[in-house]
Amino acid sequence: MEQERAWDIATQWMGTLADLDGAAAVLEWDRETIMPPGGAEARGSQLATLAALRHSHLLDPAAGDALEVVADSDDPWRAASARVARRERDRAARVPEALVRSLTEASSRGVAVWSEARPKGDVQAWIGAITPLIALTRDHGEALADGGDPYDALIDLYEPGTTHAMLEPVLDSLAARVRPLVDHLAGAGGPPLPPGPWDDPAQMALAADVVRDIGFDATRGLVGRTAHPVTMGLGAGDTRLSTRVDVSDPLSSIMAALHEGGHALYDQGIPEERRRTLAGDAPSLGAHESQSRFWENHVGRTPEFWARLQPGLRQAFPGVAGALDTDDYVRALNRVQLQPIRVESDEVTYDLHIVLRTRLERALITGDLQVADLPLAFDDGMEALLGIRPTAPAEGAMQDVHWAAGIIGYFPTYTLGNLYAAMLAEALEREVGPIGDVLAAEGPAPLLAFLRERVHAHGRVMETPELMRRATGSDLTADPFLAHLERTYASTASLS
Amino acid sequence: MEQERAWDIATQWMGTLADLDGAAAVLEWDRETIMPPGGAEARGSQLATLAALRHSHLLDPAAGDALEVVADSDDPWRAASARVARRERDRAARVPEALVRSLTEASSRGVAVWSEARPKGDVQAWIGAITPLIALTRDHGEALADGGDPYDALIDLYEPGTTHAMLEPVLDSLAARVRPLVDHLAGAGGPPLPPGPWDDPAQMALAADVVRDIGFDATRGLVGRTAHPVTMGLGAGDTRLSTRVDVSDPLSSIMAALHEGGHALYDQGIPEERRRTLAGDAPSLGAHESQSRFWENHVGRTPEFWARLQPGLRQAFPGVAGALDTDDYVRALNRVQLQPIRVESDEVTYDLHIVLRTRLERALITGDLQVADLPLAFDDGMEALLGIRPTAPAEGAMQDVHWAAGIIGYFPTYTLGNLYAAMLAEALEREVGPIGDVLAAEGPAPLLAFLRERVHAHGRVMETPELMRRATGSDLTADPFLAHLERTYASTASLS
Repeated sequence: MEQERAWDIATQWMGTLADLDGAAAVLEWDRETIMPPGGAEARGSQLATLAALRHSHLLDPAAGDALEVVADSDDPWRAASARVARRERDRAARVPEALVRSLTEASSRGVAVWSEARPKGDVQAWIGAITPLIALTRDHGEALADGGDPYDALIDLYEPGTTHAMLEPVLDSLAARVRPLVDHLAGAGGPPLPPGPWDDPAQMALAADVVRDIGFDATRGLVGRTAHPVTMGLGAGDTRLSTRVDVSDPLSSIMAALHEGGHALYDQGIPEERRRTLAGDAPSLGAHESQSRFWENHVGRTPEFWARLQPGLRQAFPGVAGALDTDDYVRALNRVQLQPIRVESDEVTYDLHIVLRTRLERALITGDLQVADLPLAFDDGMEALLGIRPTAPAEGAMQDVHWAAGIIGYFPTYTLGNLYAAMLAEALEREVGPIGDVLAAEGPAPLLAFLRERVHAHGRVMETPELMRRATGSDLTADPFLAHLERTYASTASLS
Repeated sequence: MEQERAWDIATQWMGTLADLDGAAAVLEWDRETIMPPGGAEARGSQLATLAALRHSHLLDPAAGDALEVVADSDDPWRAASARVARRERDRAARVPEALVRSLTEASSRGVAVWSEARPKGDVQAWIGAITPLIALTRDHGEALADGGDPYDALIDLYEPGTTHAMLEPVLDSLAARVRPLVDHLAGAGGPPLPPGPWDDPAQMALAADVVRDIGFDATRGLVGRTAHPVTMGLGAGDTRLSTRVDVSDPLSSIMAALHEGGHALYDQGIPEERRRTLAGDAPSLGAHESQSRFWENHVGRTPEFWARLQPGLRQAFPGVAGALDTDDYVRALNRVQLQPIRVESDEVTYDLHIVLRTRLERALITGDLQVADLPLAFDDGMEALLGIRPTAPAEGAMQDVHWAAGIIGYFPTYTLGNLYAAMLAEALEREVGPIGDVLAAEGPAPLLAFLRERVHAHGRVMETPELMRRATGSDLTADPFLAHLERTYASTASLS
């Protein structure tokens, strides 16, 4: 088959995949934002039908020959599309349908049991539900690995191109070097902001202003509101992010908007004409998270960002914000406080929670750890890494939904995001200038321009390790992240 | 094949159709309410992909044998599902793919040309675009009719079970009897309401209150806002309607909410357990319109409805509504004023516009009328029926989008809705009591209960003529509608 004809067939096949993915995203966005409770069952059924149609379209044998030809293309975008297509088709073909069904059922049951057992601290119920699920997830990893390492195969679902062997030394060094920092910084930062109330509609409006200010194109997307902030690509030209509102704390809505805004800028930065191909996306979750963390942590924690936002804050909250200055926000934000819950932890300690989970979930897959021993291993591990011990099961191994949903190999992507964000920030500061100075002098535009050129513009042409190496000049390393922590929190500590 | 096994296969096949239809409805609802402009192209592509998947699923030969067996079921719901399935499959099989493609393209072009040509009064551009479209629509009717009458086949797309031969005498008698009424009532009714402003959010909140008051279950649906009011079923338990807001006129949002609320109550009244079958829907557009028109015209134009709404109006609009009493609303609403635009015309003259269009579009399909002669025929026909003559092309044959979109056979369903609504109202008054008295004494619940039992509960088990015959004891007739007009507008005239 000729290359051009093969590409025509492949693009048509990928276009249908893109349409099905976009349609599913519309259904999910609607569900998270406005769907009435009565619609839940029908919506689940619609999503399952779209997933089944996607699965059979993905495996359509008619596309196979064309994809083989496209894989040999000299055009890196075409070759990348064929590579991603082959990976997705191989994965779908390797996992028996019966296993997929068992996993789906066990995952639904796991989440349901977890929702009920966590508030009650019912460890036995939780163990009962996740034991078969972990076994099925191991089977899944083995089926995907096709003779290779099952945990690597699971990581590969979320972070293609990265293996546990690449991760482990970085996580170990990170753990060893963050721990003394924690001891030094614990208690750094200032008191929380006054409890307001901080007007709810004003917070939503300010969040939308913040994302537009950093470069979000509101004609090609929108800012909504959900219980859990999220970013979704609903198709080319329709990127949506959401925030949440806590009337006692405006940092929650603003930082969520910055975080999701980072994801959304990535989505909007993918070249429009690639969007209907399999190369027109981010190469991994870690790559995506690097963008959200960049804006959240390397921009959103600087005094210059808050100085820039100050007029907006005073206008939005004329009462409560009138008496606050920039440092009040920065210090409240950069408060370091050891505590057992991952999602509530600060920037300094966050990754220790991830190191713990990565070690434990790998041991679950290798069989070195049994689910029945997980709660104790979790508490012991937290004590060793953070120096604190959970006082209740809901603060320990049961705290996250991931394992109860059969999601293993996902946790490391959070830390990869943090490390890549810091590597990108360091490269940017080296080449463009200190982020705070750039913000003060020119606003966020040069920061976005750097990310657009180094990351967004490349879609999935390279795997993440290669993309980041070219963008930053370095292999995966924790050094820039540690330097960022020292700088940010040392200066914050000195403010307090 | 055994009946039970056949039914299992059929329900699975229909469930996938329901999921695809529901998913498409979610995509459309989102598009009409919040989609950013940049998303339009991707959304069109997603909807086209879902339509293509629906088409190939509809024609799936694997379902054929099972549907044949189900057609012989003694269960009327099952037999009705099989009947609708066969009709849809026959239609899809009869129309060549090339014709479908040509129609889609000509329809898109027709709408685009119409949008531009109408404001400019460019009759020639409009004729140029719709001439080939009408020819294709005739081909479509001929393909569907399979030897029968092409216009009947087109009507059948929207109003199965009703033919032009059934319609014509009713429309003729309606035209003959409305005309003298128009002469008598022209100018009846009171002045418009004061221009306010009538607060926008208060109008939205009041519209939602109105639909909940008539029985809409807000846990199984929601009330939104669109440029053109609409009702959509997004799946079992998720029925959505929208209204619009004109800050100078609250009647616009309230009457649109009542109209769409009537459609939504019908959708919510379909037995939940039938929703994933092809019998779990209304049997026709005319049947659906009978429900919207019932609440809009037979409830929403009564003094008792406005008396019931009076406290809500005074609370929502404390300034402007304070000085108004019930009669002010009723008289402003029931104003009779001859004018050439269908969508702006009053209840008395509305159906004369439909009679005109039905006569003309049938002549276009039979070939008795050429598109080039349509503008003059339209103006002459309006003068004969209403006694007024359009003064510009945009007031004449070009005013509606339907013909420019290749939609022929649809107009009669509006008048069928009005006639069936009046037939139902008459039956209800005979059996339950005068609507005004019921509203004043018990509120809207007994009215909804009557419609639920007579109409909603039956889904698509019967075709519309049979459904309405059983519900009202009568064949299609204009008598109750004319009696309603005489009563409503005579009393309004006496108020003025």
